Amino acid sequence: MADSWHKLPGAKTYRVLESGPTILVSTRNKAGRANLMTVGFHMVISHEGVLAAIVSPGDFSQESLAETGECVIGVPGVDLAEQVVDIGNCSGFEVDKFDRFGFTEKKAQHVAAPLVAECLANVECTMLDDSLADAYSGLVILQAQQVWVNSGRAEHRTFHHNGDGTFNADGDLVDLRERMVLWKAYQD
Amino acid sequence: MADSWHKLPGAKTYRVLESGPTILVSTRNKAGRANLMTVGFHMVISHEGVLAAIVSPGDFSQESLAETGECVIGVPGVDLAEQVVDIGNCSGFEVDKFDRFGFTEKKAQHVAAPLVAECLANVECTMLDDSLADAYSGLVILQAQQVWVNSGRAEHRTFHHNGDGTFNADGDLVDLRERMVLWKAYQD
Repeated sequence: MADSWHKLPGAKTYRVLESGPTILVSTRNKAGRANLMTVGFHMVISHEGVLAAIVSPGDFSQESLAETGECVIGVPGVDLAEQVVDIGNCSGFEVDKFDRFGFTEKKAQHVAAPLVAECLANVECTMLDDSLADAYSGLVILQAQQVWVNSGRAEHRTFHHNGDGTFNADGDLVDLRERMVLWKAYQD
Repeated sequence: MADSWHKLPGAKTYRVLESGPTILVSTRNKAGRANLMTVGFHMVISHEGVLAAIVSPGDFSQESLAETGECVIGVPGVDLAEQVVDIGNCSGFEVDKFDRFGFTEKKAQHVAAPLVAECLANVECTMLDDSLADAYSGLVILQAQQVWVNSGRAEHRTFHHNGDGTFNADGDLVDLRERMVLWKAYQD
C-alpha cells in the first residue's frame, strides 16, 4: 500500500482531526510490542500541529506512551467501525490487537510506533506535555511530527461517536470556503 | 421554545460534544454584553463533564470568559452552518453577533452567559483550569454544570469542520451499542 500514501507537514493535522473522528492510538513499548487503543476524546489545539487526547491511566497504551513519549494517531474509515469499537472493548494486556483485528503495522518515519496501514490517515506524534495528565483523566498534549494521507482507499468517510455506542458516518458536504475570509491560510 | 427543552446532568456532555461538532461559545461580560464565537477545537475530557476548548487570546469572547469564568457551549444544527461560519469570521469588538446573525438569548440556570435558543443543545460551563492557556493557544478546561437538549427541532444533524472551510453533516447512523461491552454505563 506504500504508494497510495503521501505526506503532509504535522501542522496540517487539523485537516484530519478537527472534524472529531473516532481515532486509533498506536504505540510500541520499549520491549517492541505494538498496541492499539480507540479514542473519542481528542482535539486539535493549534494550526501548528499541537493536539490533545485522553489516554486513560493504567491502559497498556498509556504505559507505552509514558515510556516512549511517542504514538501514532490513525484515522479509520467507517468500514472499520466494528473492529475499531472492538479494539476499545478489550485490553492490550490480554490481546495482540493488530493481530486479532487484522490491522497491519507500517513503518513510521519519526517514531517507533507503527502507522496503521488500513487507515485513511496517520499522524506521527511525540509527547509535548503531560503535566495535567494526573489531574485530568490522562490528558496528554502531543506534537504532530508528520501526517500521512492514504489516497488508495474506496471508503473515505470517517465516523463520529455520539457517546452512547452509536456513531455517525460523514454525510453531506457543506462547502463554505468562500465565507471563511479570516481563515483562508488554512485552505491550501 | 421553552417547552421543547429538557435538562440532562452536566456529566452527560459527552452525548452532545464527543462527536466533534462545530460549536458556538456564548459569553456575557460583566458589562452585560453577550457574544458568540465559533469553535472547532474542543474535546470531552471525562464522563464527569470535564471539557476543553480553545478560546483564542485577545478575542472578545476570551476576555468575557476570563472576566466571568462562565460560558455556554451551543451545538448548532447544519441548517445554521452559514451563520455559524460567519460568526467565526467577524469580531465581537465590532459586531453584536446575536443581533446580526439572528440568534436568540435564552436564560441559563447556572451562568450569566445566555443559552442559544436556536441550537440543538446547550451546555452551561464554568472555568475549571486555565493554567495552560498561555502556553497552548488559549486552552481552557471547563466543568459542565448542565446540559439542555432541544427536542423541538426539525434538523437534528450537527456538522463537523474538515479544517479547510468544508464541513460534513452527520450521515448514516452506525449502531454498535451491543459491542460496547465495557462502556454500557454510558448508554443510559
